[in-house]
Amino acid sequence: MNSEKVAVVGASGYSGEELVRLLIRHERVELVALTSRQHAGLRLDAVYPKFAGQRYAGLPFIESSVDAITGSGARVVFLALPHGVAAEFARPLVAAGLRVIDLSADFRIKETAIYEEFYGEVHHAPELAALSVYGMPEIYRESIRSSQLVASPGCYPTSIILPLYPLLKRGLIDPKTIVISSMSGVSGAGRTLKTDYLFAECNESVRAYGVPKHRHLAEVEQELSNAAGIPVTVSFTPHLIPVNRGIHTTTFASLAPGVLAAQIGEALEAAYSKEPFVRLLGGTLLPDTKHVTFTNFCDIAWRFDSRTGRIILLSAEDNLVKGAAGQAIQSLNVMCGWPEGTGLL
Amino acid sequence: MNSEKVAVVGASGYSGEELVRLLIRHERVELVALTSRQHAGLRLDAVYPKFAGQRYAGLPFIESSVDAITGSGARVVFLALPHGVAAEFARPLVAAGLRVIDLSADFRIKETAIYEEFYGEVHHAPELAALSVYGMPEIYRESIRSSQLVASPGCYPTSIILPLYPLLKRGLIDPKTIVISSMSGVSGAGRTLKTDYLFAECNESVRAYGVPKHRHLAEVEQELSNAAGIPVTVSFTPHLIPVNRGIHTTTFASLAPGVLAAQIGEALEAAYSKEPFVRLLGGTLLPDTKHVTFTNFCDIAWRFDSRTGRIILLSAEDNLVKGAAGQAIQSLNVMCGWPEGTGLL
Amino acid sequence: MNSEKVAVVGASGYSGEELVRLLIRHERVELVALTSRQHAGLRLDAVYPKFAGQRYAGLPFIESSVDAITGSGARVVFLALPHGVAAEFARPLVAAGLRVIDLSADFRIKETAIYEEFYGEVHHAPELAALSVYGMPEIYRESIRSSQLVASPGCYPTSIILPLYPLLKRGLIDPKTIVISSMSGVSGAGRTLKTDYLFAECNESVRAYGVPKHRHLAEVEQELSNAAGIPVTVSFTPHLIPVNRGIHTTTFASLAPGVLAAQIGEALEAAYSKEPFVRLLGGTLLPDTKHVTFTNFCDIAWRFDSRTGRIILLSAEDNLVKGAAGQAIQSLNVMCGWPEGTGLL
Amino acid sequence: MNSEKVAVVGASGYSGEELVRLLIRHERVELVALTSRQHAGLRLDAVYPKFAGQRYAGLPFIESSVDAITGSGARVVFLALPHGVAAEFARPLVAAGLRVIDLSADFRIKETAIYEEFYGEVHHAPELAALSVYGMPEIYRESIRSSQLVASPGCYPTSIILPLYPLLKRGLIDPKTIVISSMSGVSGAGRTLKTDYLFAECNESVRAYGVPKHRHLAEVEQELSNAAGIPVTVSFTPHLIPVNRGIHTTTFASLAPGVLAAQIGEALEAAYSKEPFVRLLGGTLLPDTKHVTFTNFCDIAWRFDSRTGRIILLSAEDNLVKGAAGQAIQSLNVMCGWPEGTGLL
Repeated sequence: MNSEKVAVVGASGYSGEELVRLLIRHERVELVALTSRQHAGLRLDAVYPKFAGQRYAGLPFIESSVDAITGSGARVVFLALPHGVAAEFARPLVAAGLRVIDLSADFRIKETAIYEEFYGEVHHAPELAALSVYGMPEIYRESIRSSQLVASPGCYPTSIILPLYPLLKRGLIDPKTIVISSMSGVSGAGRTLKTDYLFAECNESVRAYGVPKHRHLAEVEQELSNAAGIPVTVSFTPHLIPVNRGIHTTTFASLAPGVLAAQIGEALEAAYSKEPFVRLLGGTLLPDTKHVTFTNFCDIAWRFDSRTGRIILLSAEDNLVKGAAGQAIQSLNVMCGWPEGTGLL
Repeated sequence: MNSEKVAVVGASGYSGEELVRLLIRHERVELVALTSRQHAGLRLDAVYPKFAGQRYAGLPFIESSVDAITGSGARVVFLALPHGVAAEFARPLVAAGLRVIDLSADFRIKETAIYEEFYGEVHHAPELAALSVYGMPEIYRESIRSSQLVASPGCYPTSIILPLYPLLKRGLIDPKTIVISSMSGVSGAGRTLKTDYLFAECNESVRAYGVPKHRHLAEVEQELSNAAGIPVTVSFTPHLIPVNRGIHTTTFASLAPGVLAAQIGEALEAAYSKEPFVRLLGGTLLPDTKHVTFTNFCDIAWRFDSRTGRIILLSAEDNLVKGAAGQAIQSLNVMCGWPEGTGLL
Repeated sequence: MNSEKVAVVGASGYSGEELVRLLIRHERVELVALTSRQHAGLRLDAVYPKFAGQRYAGLPFIESSVDAITGSGARVVFLALPHGVAAEFARPLVAAGLRVIDLSADFRIKETAIYEEFYGEVHHAPELAALSVYGMPEIYRESIRSSQLVASPGCYPTSIILPLYPLLKRGLIDPKTIVISSMSGVSGAGRTLKTDYLFAECNESVRAYGVPKHRHLAEVEQELSNAAGIPVTVSFTPHLIPVNRGIHTTTFASLAPGVLAAQIGEALEAAYSKEPFVRLLGGTLLPDTKHVTFTNFCDIAWRFDSRTGRIILLSAEDNLVKGAAGQAIQSLNVMCGWPEGTGLL
Repeated sequence: MNSEKVAVVGASGYSGEELVRLLIRHERVELVALTSRQHAGLRLDAVYPKFAGQRYAGLPFIESSVDAITGSGARVVFLALPHGVAAEFARPLVAAGLRVIDLSADFRIKETAIYEEFYGEVHHAPELAALSVYGMPEIYRESIRSSQLVASPGCYPTSIILPLYPLLKRGLIDPKTIVISSMSGVSGAGRTLKTDYLFAECNESVRAYGVPKHRHLAEVEQELSNAAGIPVTVSFTPHLIPVNRGIHTTTFASLAPGVLAAQIGEALEAAYSKEPFVRLLGGTLLPDTKHVTFTNFCDIAWRFDSRTGRIILLSAEDNLVKGAAGQAIQSLNVMCGWPEGTGLL
């Protein structure tokens, strides 16, 4: 069995930590470098006591320099950096011939103007954004296989795009009627030191945020527009709920004229019945985040609201796995020609 | 200051318990009877240790018989009983001249056929449903004042109807576009012994339920139709989240043709700026359930999603207070001519 | 009924916020000043949206200056400041003739050397520490009544001292055998911005801290030594658990020679059967923090472990109420000659 | 690489479910039978939606009959049954030559009288209890290797015995002074339908239970007595805290006369420095359940309380993994001669 040397850049946030957790168990990956400005010089298990006694426990964090990364022998590099920083970092790595899987938003948005509108900053490597592949294997598997730069999707977008994509592709729903309500666990906010994310401020609390124009709309609408073949604009409200992990998304849309509800199920079956990480729940069960946390699955159910003519789509995933580190590793598996579930099942 | 003798029937669930918690602090209420089939003969503090050392700690539960209740001298009776049972119980109390505030669904639905469609049972006192007043003081204050039978609203409906009512009344939104996504704490499920509600099944879990036709739609649509003057049908998905108390509702609707977003704020201000228990949050804050739990407030904010032409309404309340016991006591205050915040502020 | 003008200094932490929450409902208190360096100029409800629509919602925060406080007309001042700062602040207030109830540790420890050993800082007003009264009404009610400076007890100490004091006073347990294990909700850590207190670091987590020499040992041992009449040294381990509010303490101690287990119950009954805020649970129930949160009660149970000759004492309180703001208000009620439960029941 | 055919009997509780979760990932195990009276006939993923899309998702539950199990070809059987039932079930399996790993208490206690004292029932297979091996590899590895019947330890006992065993073995602490305070997540109560375990009764709640004589004391004292060579009796108080998984134990004991604190560290190092699943945390870190949940590790730290001469031991584990299913699989690995971390690291 072939294996690959891999680096994780910026392993001090929740996504980077989760990448490490998953890569420890990945039998074809050799983790050769971990970088973090903050933790350079420390062993992995000194920074994350939970990794003590496991593979790579003694691997030292190094400075996040391009030379150090290329010098480590890594052939694939995961970037778990803030947006903006990631773009700057990716350019020399790509130039050096390494393959890059970026978990930030920097390469997800094809149109620089839209990136700059939603993220409020100048893009540092627009030419790479144009070359990158959106790392959702269920849609872009073939392009990911040969890509040198994969833009791994955001957590909310994964839970939103997966159920909607095949429906828009087939014209089954009216794109102007799409309304999305999501809930995310607090790890989605990262290890940010803000009063809002203290335990006693989040526990026994639920609140919306980012209303009405959350940044993730940029990639959501890009992909939904790709599916529909016309520009799609949607309403989206995310909510913060007191769980560590998990995103649940409920999406409402009117059936397109003349479409039968059963066609929804057929389209989802056609798209996902052979996918290893999308589970269609059928007519009895509804998604529950506790069934997907610590896994790379996205669970999807749908119901027809005959009283209003709307389809209600329900999806659940682990924001740190299928919504971040797991999906990035799924792309790695595709890129390396390994079985897609390697290290993930 | 006048006071009133009050009974609570069925004080073994969360709503009944919350009624007692609030009535202990209500300076004009004399609690003269507590009934519960299950707990008859026990002192209040033997059933609920948290009430030890407080007013009424020694009050014994009695059997839920009509004679016992009328014999207690109670002039107002709160019914905290399952639907179906409540209707049977209310009839003799009303006949005996007592005033009844029912927390079940039995008298909320004016049309018996709709009640029977949504609740799947024959209605036991349809003539009383026709006479009852829907106990939302912000809308029906004058009728509540003189009513003998108040049907206190459901928890989800309160959080849904309050923001939408004034907008539909003024024709500001398109009733056909209303989509509602709510989240409720687990106390909303009552003290029901089901595996689904065990701690280890709810903690670190989020899930939708009752899709697409939750029972509360019956009263929601009745009231929204009243507001709009035409039949209104909406889509509604409730979700269970791991908090004890609190409901958060996010509602999406398209502006009616020709309406300006600013009119939404004006309508909400006109309706609620003088209401003691509705707080409009303005343009900076969004509702957070932690600001309303253990209070009778419903917090409301709105945002205009200019990209889609939709209004997004956000509301939060404590499902056991404004969504149940607190709102029932607010009706009591109205019925008795007391300041509406008595015992609630 | 007489009333009193009161100020809260440092109302930006959880204890200060809880003082406000409780004082809003206190019918004999007129809140005339709220201070906070951070929030000066803002209305109460701008800082704490949860207080909107309530009494004092519009009260502005002012700078924490002594002149401003004395100028407000306040006769009693609550200090909710960090230790060290409180001592400096108290001196001019006391000199100006105001009565001060300090929620910090600054005046709890009578011996300056012990304060400085445990808190690692020079004491700024040792002469006041000597004059102050430890604000636990169950023990020092008479001294509190006439005191000008009350040192309100710490959260852990309240839950530890209350069950042990009467037993040590009567010589029923061997002071050398006392071992204490406590658990606290995260609000006990204050609104401190540390990674350790982020939601995703506390939820689904339990950990000990401050082992083996937590600062609260200073006041615990001072009071237990007072009770025993000899120096008492104990082992104490606090743990952080994922709840917002609540402390649970389990204390183990061997019966003194010749003592019968029944004498434990008698001593507790003698000490507390008439106390408004200590509830003895008898032989069936054990304390549960959910029965005391949002109240000023401390619940206590005890069991005899006949296999080892040890007494096991169990106690529960709300760390923000009986463990902080509530007990401070209980002292206020004592100082003002009001019924002790005023505003607290 | 050799593999083994394995059955799980009684896979409807949390321990059985966790066994399945772990065995799915165990590369040397072939799961040939899953039994459950309640679920017989259903596929694994119909009972546990979280296992859909994974290995064994389609495996049907069968009736819990001995014939069916032996007929499945299983050579090793995990029993995840209530105590009492397990003993009856084990006898014919052992007689049929199968190897049995029992997760109940039935074979943990060597003395039938003690079992019957603590469990209040007649023992159904005392002759097997005498033959069984207590399944804690760190202590009984050699006996487990060749055992036909392994009694896998309880959750609390694992967290208590591991830190204390080497200290008692070397006579470093005074056995008469041992006091233990533990906290467990709610999954420890199993999928029991009791009001006490409903979400809204456990969340924002902490409480002790089983005071003063919890059943787990039977096995704890048996093993501590083995270590000490004299009968050891301890005080133990367990507490229920609102997490799904995790046990934290804090143990207090006085140093034996003449012992130096440093010897504690040496004894723990000598016992555990080469153990794959015991991690000694050194002088800086303290155990945190979030570092061990979903792993088979038990983390241990110790501190010397020089003021009282006591050692404070702190330990953390996942009650469902090292405290149940994981440790049972660790025994399986020992029994089969596989690397002990197989499927667990």
